[in-house]
Amino acid sequence: MTARLLVDGVAAERVSVLDRGFGYGDGLFESIRLVGTRAPLWARHMQRLTAGCERLLIPAPDPDQLWHETQQVRADMAHAVVRITVTRGIGERGYAPPATPRPTRVVAAFPPPPVGEAAIHGVRMRLCRLRLAEQPRLAGIKHLNRLEQVLARAEWNDPAIAEGVLCDGHGHVISATMANLFAVIDGELLTPAVDRCGIAGVARAEVLEATSVRVAEIPLDTLAGASELFLSSSVRGIVPVQSLERWTWAPGAVARRLQQHWRDLGFSMEQGG
Amino acid sequence: MTARLLVDGVAAERVSVLDRGFGYGDGLFESIRLVGTRAPLWARHMQRLTAGCERLLIPAPDPDQLWHETQQVRADMAHAVVRITVTRGIGERGYAPPATPRPTRVVAAFPPPPVGEAAIHGVRMRLCRLRLAEQPRLAGIKHLNRLEQVLARAEWNDPAIAEGVLCDGHGHVISATMANLFAVIDGELLTPAVDRCGIAGVARAEVLEATSVRVAEIPLDTLAGASELFLSSSVRGIVPVQSLERWTWAPGAVARRLQQHWRDLGFSMEQGG
Repeated sequence: MTARLLVDGVAAERVSVLDRGFGYGDGLFESIRLVGTRAPLWARHMQRLTAGCERLLIPAPDPDQLWHETQQVRADMAHAVVRITVTRGIGERGYAPPATPRPTRVVAAFPPPPVGEAAIHGVRMRLCRLRLAEQPRLAGIKHLNRLEQVLARAEWNDPAIAEGVLCDGHGHVISATMANLFAVIDGELLTPAVDRCGIAGVARAEVLEATSVRVAEIPLDTLAGASELFLSSSVRGIVPVQSLERWTWAPGAVARRLQQHWRDLGFSMEQGG
Repeated sequence: MTARLLVDGVAAERVSVLDRGFGYGDGLFESIRLVGTRAPLWARHMQRLTAGCERLLIPAPDPDQLWHETQQVRADMAHAVVRITVTRGIGERGYAPPATPRPTRVVAAFPPPPVGEAAIHGVRMRLCRLRLAEQPRLAGIKHLNRLEQVLARAEWNDPAIAEGVLCDGHGHVISATMANLFAVIDGELLTPAVDRCGIAGVARAEVLEATSVRVAEIPLDTLAGASELFLSSSVRGIVPVQSLERWTWAPGAVARRLQQHWRDLGFSMEQGG
């Protein structure tokens, strides 16, 4: 079986236009890095997906079924990113959720982005003009309402700039457009809270458990005094930040230590190791 | 031709799972009330859709083509709601918009909801717990990121309650879940601004032009002193509010006058006329 796309377990490339994922962005997704048949952060992805389904009142899919379908779509790819999308399924016109939703499940395999160079030398970043809105009811979840990220990412097309920093309306740093953000300030590793906006990244959760991190408010200006800045992403791993606008950094010891942790997890090819 | 669904002009019921509408809610929609072959608010819908496409950097569709397709899907329906969805089209995995997007266009006809009773006697409303987030970059647009409305509408399932009032984080009234809101306070007709959150309704725009309205901040508590409260919706027209939680109103003179205006536009069947 070489299908790269499964819709509700069947090889298919299309979903109904009446699917609430298409109509309202009414669903969630996970982007999962595979190394061969392994997905080192699988349990965390399933945990977040299940928690997100609960918060959106969508019946959660069966992780075993998702695992089986993930292996089907990756087929013989040595490296893959598998995107799992779960929506509230087909519904009548109108926002009211169906009384008994039958969720739609899409599992799709993609070639992973190249990350070796970024992991070694770090990436250049810019500051996004768009400020993230604060919505505690949706914060943390990897839901399908991603226009903020799309508009933020549309602010530049210079391929030399890998990522953009997103702040909230108070000028506090929240994340990058597709990664979480960590800073070492006064010798302490900090990362922003994601309970008002932002996404609770699976890689972020791994970092929080692997080392000592304080979840803190990080005003943008304080990054000027950071000794180290790096990103975490379930697809890209630990990526040092080389520059943000006029500020520059060298890859630091904390990022290197976490990259070693990533290699220990099984992500050897992606972390320049 | 009796198709009720067109995808890019072709009778079809499905879109690609790689469509950015499905992946990120990356697009917009319009819900347009038809009376026979006529769509009295058509020009306003096209104006909003075009403006929304501009703000999201999506090439706008041709209104003449949309009109043609709208007539195709309504076929022989005496009354219909036609939903037009425009997305950024198929894209690679990742938020970055394609350099040359080829938008997807879906036109679908649905039977309209019954509105006669509501127009005559008014509807009962509740106050939603969910507070709308403030995102000026997306405010006003009828985009596909509608999880806030879905979660707000999921707060109740009592069919006797037709709508819910949505406030922002400051406790100011913004709208209902699927309609804009107007209040007569101290003899003056007021409606909230929609430049930080909420949708700039097509029916709201018609009201703003048809009569004297002041766009104002409306703290929730001031509704207690309103002499009249009503909703505007391109699908439902002008709908008096009978009650909001413990507060009650009778359908008022301003709503009745605007219902007459709606009948004059050609919506005779929907406004109890």
